[in-house]
Amino acid sequence: MRATFVVLMLCSAFVPLAEAQSQHPPNLMPMPASVQMGAGRLLIDPSFSVALSGRPDPLLRRTVDRFLNNLRQQTGMLPLDMKVTDSSNATLVINCEHASKEVQELGEDESYDLEISNSGAKLSAPTSLGVMRGLQTFLQLAHTTSDGFAVPAIAIQDKPRFPWRGLMIDVSRHFIPLDVLKRNLDGMAAVKLNVFHWHLSDNQGFRIESKEFSKLHQMGSDGLYYTQEEVRNLIAYARDRGIRVVPEFDMPGHSTAWFVGYPELASGPGRYEIERKWGVFDPAMDPTQERTYKFLDKFIGEMAKLFPDRFFHIGGDEVNGKQWDANPKIQEFMRSHGMKNNQDLQAYFNKRVQAIVSKHGKTMLGWDEILHPGLPKSVVIQSWRGQESLAEAAKQGYRGLLSHGYYVDLIWPAWQHYAVDPMSDAAASLSPDEKQRILGGEACMWAEYVSPENIDSRIWPRTAAIAERLWSPQDVRDVNSMYQRLEEVSRRLEGLGLTHNSSYAPMLRRIAGRDDISALQVLADVVEPVKDDTREKTAPVEPTSATPLNRLVDAARPESATARRFADLVNELAGGSLKPGPEPQIRKLLTRWRDQQENLQSLLEESFLLKEAAPLSQELSNLGAAGLAALDYLDRGQRAPEAWKAEQLALIEQAKTQKAQLLLMVVPSIEKLIEASAGQAPLPAK
Amino acid sequence: MRATFVVLMLCSAFVPLAEAQSQHPPNLMPMPASVQMGAGRLLIDPSFSVALSGRPDPLLRRTVDRFLNNLRQQTGMLPLDMKVTDSSNATLVINCEHASKEVQELGEDESYDLEISNSGAKLSAPTSLGVMRGLQTFLQLAHTTSDGFAVPAIAIQDKPRFPWRGLMIDVSRHFIPLDVLKRNLDGMAAVKLNVFHWHLSDNQGFRIESKEFSKLHQMGSDGLYYTQEEVRNLIAYARDRGIRVVPEFDMPGHSTAWFVGYPELASGPGRYEIERKWGVFDPAMDPTQERTYKFLDKFIGEMAKLFPDRFFHIGGDEVNGKQWDANPKIQEFMRSHGMKNNQDLQAYFNKRVQAIVSKHGKTMLGWDEILHPGLPKSVVIQSWRGQESLAEAAKQGYRGLLSHGYYVDLIWPAWQHYAVDPMSDAAASLSPDEKQRILGGEACMWAEYVSPENIDSRIWPRTAAIAERLWSPQDVRDVNSMYQRLEEVSRRLEGLGLTHNSSYAPMLRRIAGRDDISALQVLADVVEPVKDDTREKTAPVEPTSATPLNRLVDAARPESATARRFADLVNELAGGSLKPGPEPQIRKLLTRWRDQQENLQSLLEESFLLKEAAPLSQELSNLGAAGLAALDYLDRGQRAPEAWKAEQLALIEQAKTQKAQLLLMVVPSIEKLIEASAGQAPLPAK
Repeated sequence: MRATFVVLMLCSAFVPLAEAQSQHPPNLMPMPASVQMGAGRLLIDPSFSVALSGRPDPLLRRTVDRFLNNLRQQTGMLPLDMKVTDSSNATLVINCEHASKEVQELGEDESYDLEISNSGAKLSAPTSLGVMRGLQTFLQLAHTTSDGFAVPAIAIQDKPRFPWRGLMIDVSRHFIPLDVLKRNLDGMAAVKLNVFHWHLSDNQGFRIESKEFSKLHQMGSDGLYYTQEEVRNLIAYARDRGIRVVPEFDMPGHSTAWFVGYPELASGPGRYEIERKWGVFDPAMDPTQERTYKFLDKFIGEMAKLFPDRFFHIGGDEVNGKQWDANPKIQEFMRSHGMKNNQDLQAYFNKRVQAIVSKHGKTMLGWDEILHPGLPKSVVIQSWRGQESLAEAAKQGYRGLLSHGYYVDLIWPAWQHYAVDPMSDAAASLSPDEKQRILGGEACMWAEYVSPENIDSRIWPRTAAIAERLWSPQDVRDVNSMYQRLEEVSRRLEGLGLTHNSSYAPMLRRIAGRDDISALQVLADVVEPVKDDTREKTAPVEPTSATPLNRLVDAARPESATARRFADLVNELAGGSLKPGPEPQIRKLLTRWRDQQENLQSLLEESFLLKEAAPLSQELSNLGAAGLAALDYLDRGQRAPEAWKAEQLALIEQAKTQKAQLLLMVVPSIEKLIEASAGQAPLPAK
Repeated sequence: MRATFVVLMLCSAFVPLAEAQSQHPPNLMPMPASVQMGAGRLLIDPSFSVALSGRPDPLLRRTVDRFLNNLRQQTGMLPLDMKVTDSSNATLVINCEHASKEVQELGEDESYDLEISNSGAKLSAPTSLGVMRGLQTFLQLAHTTSDGFAVPAIAIQDKPRFPWRGLMIDVSRHFIPLDVLKRNLDGMAAVKLNVFHWHLSDNQGFRIESKEFSKLHQMGSDGLYYTQEEVRNLIAYARDRGIRVVPEFDMPGHSTAWFVGYPELASGPGRYEIERKWGVFDPAMDPTQERTYKFLDKFIGEMAKLFPDRFFHIGGDEVNGKQWDANPKIQEFMRSHGMKNNQDLQAYFNKRVQAIVSKHGKTMLGWDEILHPGLPKSVVIQSWRGQESLAEAAKQGYRGLLSHGYYVDLIWPAWQHYAVDPMSDAAASLSPDEKQRILGGEACMWAEYVSPENIDSRIWPRTAAIAERLWSPQDVRDVNSMYQRLEEVSRRLEGLGLTHNSSYAPMLRRIAGRDDISALQVLADVVEPVKDDTREKTAPVEPTSATPLNRLVDAARPESATARRFADLVNELAGGSLKPGPEPQIRKLLTRWRDQQENLQSLLEESFLLKEAAPLSQELSNLGAAGLAALDYLDRGQRAPEAWKAEQLALIEQAKTQKAQLLLMVVPSIEKLIEASAGQAPLPAK
């Protein structure tokens, strides 16, 4: 196959991307390692067929069936259209060299070559994983054209930069039903992520059935847990999509939910209740008693059988040590074992747990706190604290994953996650051998503020940008290109059943208490939830796991596309573009913002959920008016008076603080307009 | 309970609807038999609780769990919010007098009383079916208010007008997967429909697994069928929602798919293939051979066990008799049995089949063609031909259902279905006894032009109007009120997972071949698919079951809300409303229509699916311009010249014919504007 490809290259049928301007540029995400555009396109009509050569196993057959269903869905074709055939004249011929492994492994070859001409397409890959990745690329290439649905003539050689590209979902703080997880696995497969890290236990809930210790789920979950049957079902679903499933059972901290049924595991006296609030809590397992390890041996043994993946995550983060400090028996144990501090005690615990995990055939994985020289080098460190601890682990001989910078619950914009590279900062100066130990990274969806209704909107589409960071070559980092492609990927993800876009209007309708949400949406479109840990810090009432997630902050999108577009328009104006340039569009938006408050006023009285938005609405209205005034000064070629400017900037400062846990994202751009209207900046040419 | 209610009435806490203007009017559909508004409202917050008294069976418990889940979904609350309790202080106390029947029966009591004050709510019903209906009413009452989510103080006494309120779905012509059926069952339950009529076999596919005759599904379905396990699953799902499942196996005609595996059943020589086209075909079962009845005895016996419902539908429609005419053996049989025509032969067949159906404990149901004096009076006739045959059947002593007028595949507007009453026309003059025999009706979704993607949009929301016709008192017939409530019901149905609204934009995006569909949507919003059987007659290429359903005609909504609103505006203008009145809105719409063509032009060249829309786009543009010119004449108080008028009316005539199997629904209103501009009609006051 590789030979064929080279021949094609020599024939010059394919030209580098930049030279093929006439072609629809491929809106691919993640961007493949190598793309060469060809001339022409391959039509996709009801007679489209797929042939499998090489060693097609049942996994591959299911993959192709799913591929055809996706292609039918994209094109509106029916089950009687398009088929799998034995003929070598098929429209798409797939060659897969090896049957896939029974249990998907870290580092399995995911590469593929995809070659499309106007007469047919060929997808070749060493493994069925590569075929899966290549078929996702094919689906992303399919478009409506003037002649029919088609994929462009193209030659792609592709493989991932990192072997571990994950998404972690916390199902403890809020339970996330199986069907929601499944649609997210579909999303992961679409952007070539390959590890689902399932954070199954925490203070707020123990979410999996244990047959050995049934009080874990019976008393620790409010009845909200997955049966083992469901877990097996999810693992098979993931396997079909080339995704490994790594379970996490957080210990010795983050474990209150265990103690509701088994208080004897804890370091302090019971009784315990499922935690309803957020934060770091005192309860921790007692590392000094043998029955803890006996329990864990049995429990880990049970879970090791249920989860086929080689890796087993034991958490290990954020032990505050208060229960240990307060327990004389534990203090005595530490003294008698020469332990200087709680870190030593946790290291002892980790070593014991590592031995258990290893005994059951698994490799241990934990958050960066578990890093301690006593652990065997097989252990993998997942860094939530930064590239430094990742580099430190690599230097010490440990493999590592980056999650710092990929916490999607912090509500960063996509560009900010996109800029984070596992090999940057401290990791950049590692030796080649040490770099090899950096396996990749994981997006993390912590679940304090997500429900089945809005979790998709917190994960997608931003996680697709992280997926590109982990799959594509390091030099793929053009932010504009990323955003442009992200928009299309986002639509495609919706087509797979994700609800990150479609959940928005119904949530706004509920808040407005009426069907017509046009006024509310003008406001909602330009706000974003507060960032980092500000939601915690600014909560009007202390939130719990029973607090409804139905406020404007829960409906607002993590990243305002309107604000981003407005910033682009203002920059264009500031760049001195010719009249009328972006000005009419800027005016239109500013006018809409100025006027929304009046429209929203009647709604505010009808809905309790809208009341908290009143100050935001007022501020947006003021900002719109200020921006329009600034534009008027600019238009008249008149310099805005200092007093006016000062007044407006005071407004701006006020508008920068959160209200209702939301931020008005158009503030900086309007500030720019005000500054320009009062400054010496050359006005846009008339 | 009834006593309590009367007391409340005496206390004057409740006032008739019209007097309670200050209250949010209850947007209920179907409208209950009796509604009295009270003062105040009952808040629904996370502490909301439900208690069950009387005889709560497992069915009722599941009903309440589902109710709470729906209420959580409506309010954005979480699984930890709201609960079932034993306390009589619960927010909502449900009293159910009798455990429900194991198998739901025709005519079971579905009545309920719902009484809500600002301190609590009480729902009483003789059966769990009544509780289900009452809880749906409660869900429709819940709204966002200034203080929180709430239901208004109200007293409702409700019961259905007809005991049989059905929806038929044809899954043969296009296979409809189980999950799509399930979401439609959720929709049915929401509007209190109680029979799912499952049209399981036809010429184009035999859609159910038979263990007795496995070639039926193996050779007659293209692999697209329901397993018996899935069927049981669906029946249980329906039972939980108070919906009976009546299977239909169409015979002796509409049965080609049976003959693919069992040609010996047919009246003509094989071999047979699954039919791919639409229409009435020749193949029919051979009523003269005993093996036909032996086969049917075994088959019906198998299906009678699988489907617990008392009724069994044998189709019986549209036998063209050609195979019978051409078969000398059959002709000989008819002669020797003294049969004058094919109707007699079919009557003989029906009698034999009726005996089999009856032997297996079921009551036979069939389309109006089966009506024949020889059949026992237990048989039920479903009329697709009109109230006349329904009345005729009732006079002869047969029970009947109306489906004529409720065929949603004919793409009628909701008001047209809404106007059809099972008791109108010929049925109106029946005696009270005869009227008793009219059991109700069924909306019918024939599946020539629906796929899983657009079937919801063909069923909903229009079927909710039919549901109201069958549930509510006969005098509930205000069309404006119906449309207003229909809009809200439509949103609620979407919340249950139906996709009649949400499928629209993705289909338009596919047609446009781009994300921005604003230009296309201006056009799409004012067109409707052709009506009645015009789609058949105007097909550019003969359609088959493999023809993709991805054209504009497949995406267009059955009823243009924009056109309806525009007609209202024009009527308001013609009614002489004061300036500015509706004129600015009319101008805005006309301008948008005039201008869409220019915007759409670039798209037309990019997408093969858009090409056929070009003439429509051009016409809409002309109509917009004509309407604007007419308004100008009206504004100037000038009479439009006759020549101009003639020219415009020629345009109008041209625009009345279908293009791309679509109709421009704003034509009559624009015609009205043109007529007014050239007429003597008094101009709206300035």
